[in-house]
Amino acid sequence: MILEKIHSPADLKRLSAKKEQALAYEIRNELLQATSATGGHVSSNLGVVELTIALYSVFDTPKDQIVWDVGHQTYVQKMLTGRKDRFDTLRQAGGLSGFPRTYESPYDLFNAGHASNSISLAYGLAKARDLKHAGGEVVAVIGDGALTGGLAYEALNNAGKGESKLIVVLNDNELSIGQNTGRLAHNLNRMRTKRFYIRTKLDTKKILLRMPGGVSLFKRLRRLKRRIKYFLLNGVFFEEMGFAYLGPVDGHNIKDLKKILNQAKNLDEPVIVHVRTTKGKGYKPAEQDPSRFHGIGAYDLDTGECKNKQAKTWSDVFGNTMMELADKDPKICAVSAAMIDGTGLTDFAHYYPERSFDVGIAEEHAVTFAAGLAKGGMKPVCSIYSTFLQRAYDQILHDVCMNDLPVTFCVDRAGIVGEDGESHQGIYDLAYLAHIPGLTVLAPANDKELKKMLSYAISSGHPCAIRYPRGAAVAGSEKVPEIQTGKGQILREGTDAAILALGCTVSMAEEAAKKLAEQDHINASVINMRFAAPLDEELIAWACKNHKVVITCEDHVDDGGFGQKVISAAPADCRGKIQTIAIPNGFVRQGARKDLLDQFGISAEGIRGKILEALR
Amino acid sequence: MILEKIHSPADLKRLSAKKEQALAYEIRNELLQATSATGGHVSSNLGVVELTIALYSVFDTPKDQIVWDVGHQTYVQKMLTGRKDRFDTLRQAGGLSGFPRTYESPYDLFNAGHASNSISLAYGLAKARDLKHAGGEVVAVIGDGALTGGLAYEALNNAGKGESKLIVVLNDNELSIGQNTGRLAHNLNRMRTKRFYIRTKLDTKKILLRMPGGVSLFKRLRRLKRRIKYFLLNGVFFEEMGFAYLGPVDGHNIKDLKKILNQAKNLDEPVIVHVRTTKGKGYKPAEQDPSRFHGIGAYDLDTGECKNKQAKTWSDVFGNTMMELADKDPKICAVSAAMIDGTGLTDFAHYYPERSFDVGIAEEHAVTFAAGLAKGGMKPVCSIYSTFLQRAYDQILHDVCMNDLPVTFCVDRAGIVGEDGESHQGIYDLAYLAHIPGLTVLAPANDKELKKMLSYAISSGHPCAIRYPRGAAVAGSEKVPEIQTGKGQILREGTDAAILALGCTVSMAEEAAKKLAEQDHINASVINMRFAAPLDEELIAWACKNHKVVITCEDHVDDGGFGQKVISAAPADCRGKIQTIAIPNGFVRQGARKDLLDQFGISAEGIRGKILEALR
Repeated sequence: MILEKIHSPADLKRLSAKKEQALAYEIRNELLQATSATGGHVSSNLGVVELTIALYSVFDTPKDQIVWDVGHQTYVQKMLTGRKDRFDTLRQAGGLSGFPRTYESPYDLFNAGHASNSISLAYGLAKARDLKHAGGEVVAVIGDGALTGGLAYEALNNAGKGESKLIVVLNDNELSIGQNTGRLAHNLNRMRTKRFYIRTKLDTKKILLRMPGGVSLFKRLRRLKRRIKYFLLNGVFFEEMGFAYLGPVDGHNIKDLKKILNQAKNLDEPVIVHVRTTKGKGYKPAEQDPSRFHGIGAYDLDTGECKNKQAKTWSDVFGNTMMELADKDPKICAVSAAMIDGTGLTDFAHYYPERSFDVGIAEEHAVTFAAGLAKGGMKPVCSIYSTFLQRAYDQILHDVCMNDLPVTFCVDRAGIVGEDGESHQGIYDLAYLAHIPGLTVLAPANDKELKKMLSYAISSGHPCAIRYPRGAAVAGSEKVPEIQTGKGQILREGTDAAILALGCTVSMAEEAAKKLAEQDHINASVINMRFAAPLDEELIAWACKNHKVVITCEDHVDDGGFGQKVISAAPADCRGKIQTIAIPNGFVRQGARKDLLDQFGISAEGIRGKILEALR
Repeated sequence: MILEKIHSPADLKRLSAKKEQALAYEIRNELLQATSATGGHVSSNLGVVELTIALYSVFDTPKDQIVWDVGHQTYVQKMLTGRKDRFDTLRQAGGLSGFPRTYESPYDLFNAGHASNSISLAYGLAKARDLKHAGGEVVAVIGDGALTGGLAYEALNNAGKGESKLIVVLNDNELSIGQNTGRLAHNLNRMRTKRFYIRTKLDTKKILLRMPGGVSLFKRLRRLKRRIKYFLLNGVFFEEMGFAYLGPVDGHNIKDLKKILNQAKNLDEPVIVHVRTTKGKGYKPAEQDPSRFHGIGAYDLDTGECKNKQAKTWSDVFGNTMMELADKDPKICAVSAAMIDGTGLTDFAHYYPERSFDVGIAEEHAVTFAAGLAKGGMKPVCSIYSTFLQRAYDQILHDVCMNDLPVTFCVDRAGIVGEDGESHQGIYDLAYLAHIPGLTVLAPANDKELKKMLSYAISSGHPCAIRYPRGAAVAGSEKVPEIQTGKGQILREGTDAAILALGCTVSMAEEAAKKLAEQDHINASVINMRFAAPLDEELIAWACKNHKVVITCEDHVDDGGFGQKVISAAPADCRGKIQTIAIPNGFVRQGARKDLLDQFGISAEGIRGKILEALR
C-alpha cells in the first residue's frame, strides 16, 4: 500500500509517476470502502482524486494555502494530510468531518460548507500575504456549479485586478466535450499573447461551429450552465475578468495537471486553471448517476444501492402536496436553488416543467425572482434549506416582505441536520425570519399539518415561511383542524404544567405528557403553537395563567428563538413561569440528529425531566 | 410650461421632438428647484431625464412594466406620472418618497432601495406574464454600479435563456469614451449576425489599441468597473449571457433613445440596451462632482454648496479613529462596499490606499473577503450601513463567526435613518446579528466610546460588530472607562426605576433621569449597557432587584431587539418588571429621524413618560 506511507503532502512529492497512479487507485478504493459504510459525498471526491494528488505535490501546503469551495470534496485531501486512519469515523459524532474543519488539521484553512465563497476567502489571504510582504501561493478550488453563485462573481470581479497573485482552479465536472474540441481547446494552453489568443479563440469557434455536429453539440449542453461553460471553453470570461486563463486540462491525468499547475505557479498575475473532471470517476454506479451519489447514505458497494430505504420524509410530503395543489391551481410555481431533488420537487419538476424553476446555486436570486413571479400574479413556493436560506435574508425582507408579496418559503432541513455538522445546521431560521415584519412563520407538527400549512400559506396572499426538519415525517394520526392565522391548538389539557411546542417537538411533548400522567401523576397540557410569528398570545396567556410551570421546546438555538419570543409575548407577571428547552447558543458539530437532540434535552424525556425538576 | 400638461405618460406620446427637448429642460429646472430645498438624489436624476422621457413614451406603462434598480433615480418618472405637484414634499414625512413606493402610484412596481435586484424582479414578472399568456413588455433599468452586485449576475445568468422576453436597460453613467471609440462602438448598433459581430468586435479592439492614446485611455478607466465596462463596450458579456445587445446609445438624445428602445421592443428575445448617460447632466456643480450630489441635503442652487454644514457625525468619528489606529498598527485594513465616503473612510482611503478596499456594491464579498484578510493575519474593519449589511447575514455567520475570525463590522446608519424611508431604516441589525454565535455586538453612547469600542473590537481577536446611527455624534463629556467584554456601566444610581440604554439612547436616558429627579422627584438609575451581545446579566439582575421598574430603550424594532433579549436574560422572577421602548414591529416610512424617534417614544420625554406611567 502506497497510501499507508503518505503521512503528509511531503511524502507525495517523492512518488514516481507510476506510484502516483497506483495511489489514485488505492484512494478510490478507500473512498468507496469508507463511504459505502458511513455515507457521504461520493461523486465529487471520486472526481478529484488526481487533482488533489497534483495540487498537494505541486504546492507546499500548508505554507501555500489551498481553499476548497464548499469542501465536500476534501476527503482525498484529508487522506493525504494525515487523517486516513480515521475514515471509519467519517461524519459521525466526534469523528472526521465531511467538510474542512480548522480544528482537525492545519491543512483545513476554513470551516466551510456553503458554496461560492472560496475566491473571496483566497483573495483575502492573497492580499494579506502581499501586505505582509510574505511569500507563498494562494489557491482556490471551485466547482462550476458554485460559479453560478453571485458571491463568486463579486470576488472574480474584485480579484481580477492583477495586483495580487491568486490561482483559481476551476473544477469543471460536467462539460463533456468531444475529442476535436478538446484538442483545439488544448491549444489554448500554450497561448500567451493577447493577440494570438484572440485570433485562435476565433478559429476555435469557427471550426467548432463548422464541425459536423458541432452546433448541436453546443445546444445539448445543459441549459443552466451553458453560458458559463461557454465562457470557460473560450477562456474569455476569465480573461476579461482580469485573470490569465490556462486549460482546459484533463483532470484525471496527474502529469498534465502537475504541468499546468506549475505553469500557474510561475505566472505573476491572477490565473484561472480550467480542469475537466468526471464526477464519480472510477465507480460505475456513481459515474452513471453522479447526482444520486452527490450526498448519499450507506450503500452496497457492488450494486450501488442504498442500504437504508428511508421512510417518507418531510421533503416527500412537501413534494407530494405541491403536486396535488399545482394540479388544481395553475398559478402555483416552484423555485429552487440547485436543490430540486433534495427538497422533494423531482416529480413536480417532471410534471410541471414550465412552472418549476431551478436557478442554480443562487439563493438571493431565487427569492427575488420569486418576488417578481408573485407580483406578476403567480403563487411561487420557494423551497430552500434553512442553512442556505441565510444567504437570502435581505431579499426576503426587502424584496418580498417590504412589498407584502405572496411568496411561500418552504424552509427544509430546519433544525439539527446531523452528519454535515456546524456549517449545515438549520438552527438559526427562527431568529433570522420571525422578526421580519409581515412574514408569517409556521412549523408543522406532522405530515398532515404540513399539507394544511402549505395550502394555507399559498392562499394567504402574504409572505409565509414553513419550517420543517430533515428526515422522516411524523405521521399525523388524527384529523388536523384548519390553520387559522396566529392560532395554536390545545392538544391535551392538564393543570400542573403546560408544554408549548412547535413543529417537530409537538410529538415529543405529547409523549412527555403521556409519561408524566402515567408514571409521575402529573397532568400536563400540550399546546401545538403552529405559528412562530405571529405568536398566539392568547394561548400563551392561558397557559401561563392556568399552570404552575410553562415549558417551551424547539429544534432551534435559544438565542432569538421561539422560547425567548414566548417569554416576551407572555403577560409580564407570568414571564417567570416560563422555561425554555432549546439548543444552547453556539455552533453544533456533527452527530446523528436524534443523538444531538437528546443531548440538548429536545426529546420527550428532556421535556419530562424539565417539568419534574421545575415542579420539585 | 409643457410639464404642467403632463399628467400621465399618455400625454408624453403626443409631444413633438422639439417639445420633448423643452420638457427635458423644464424637468431639470424642477429637479434642481425641488432638491435644492429638500435635498435628495441629484446627479442620478439629472442623468436620466431623457432616458425616462424616452422610456415612458415608447412603452405603455403601467401595462408595460418598468422596474428601476435601487430607485433613487425615479424622480423624473414621478414627475411624468402625476406626482409633479408634490415635489415640495419630497423625502418628508407623509410626502413623496425618494424611491419607488407602490402605495404612491401604480407606476411604481416595487418598494425598492437596495441595489442589483431589478433583473431578478423583472425576470419574475416576465415569466409570470408568459405563464399567464399575457402580453406586455417588461423592462429593468439598472446602473453600471449595481452590476457589480452578485444578485444582478445571478439574474442575468438565469434570465438569459432566451425563453422569456425581457429588456434590460443599462444606464452606464461613468464611462467617458473619446469620440473615435464612440463612433466605432456606434457601429455595434447595427450589427445583427453573430459572425459580423465578432469580426467587427475584433476590429474595434485592434483600432482602439493602435489609436494614439488608445491604450492609456483604457488604463485610465476606473479600476473597479473596468472589466464590466469592457464587456459593455464589446457587448460580448451580455451576448454570452444569452442577451441580444443593442448600443451604446447617447442617453441624452431622446430621438436615438426612442429608436433603440423600439428596436428592443421588436426583438423577441432577452435584450440589453446599453445607454450612456452623464451623471449630474445639465448642472455644472453636479457634473463636476457627481458623487457629492449623489445623495445630498439642501443646497444653494447657484453655488452648489450645502446649506447645512453638518456637525461631526458618527461616521466622521469612526473615520478619524481609523486613521489614528491605522497609523500605529499596519495590520488594520478597511473594507467598504461602494461606501468609502458615506462611512467616513475618505481620508483613510487617501492615506492608506493599499489597506483600503472598496469592493463595489458587493456586501457579501466584502464580508467574506474580510474573513480571508483576517485569516491571513490582518485586522479588517468592514464598514457597511445597517440596511445593506442585511445582504451579508450568511457571510457573517458562516465565513466570519463560524471561523471565529477577528473581523470588525462597523454598522453605520443603524437605527432610524429618516428621509430615505422603509427601504433604508437600519432597525433590524440587533435581530439579525446579536444571535449569531461568537459575535460580540456593541453600541457606543458617544464619540469617545466609539473610539474605545473600535480599539477594543480590533484588538479583541474575535468578530465584533459596532452599531451607531446616522447623523451628529453625541459628544462624550467625561472620561470614558475602558471597554470590558460584556460589561455595562452604571452612569447614575437611583432607587425607583432603572433605565437600561444602548448606544444613542444612553444620552436620552440621562436627560430623562435628570428631569425625573428635578421635576418628578423620582430617582432613576441610568445604565449604559454597551453590549447587546453578550449581555451584562449581572447588571440586568442588579437593575431588576433594586428597582421597582426597569425600562429598556433602543433605536431598533422591538421584535428580536435589545429589550426582548434583556427580558430573556433577566432573573425569571423579575422579568415582569421590565418594559421595553422600541420601534413597533413593521416597516417605518420616511420622516425626520428625530421626529420618528419622538413618535415612538425613543426620547428623554418618552422614557420619562414610560417611567411615570409605570410608577403611577
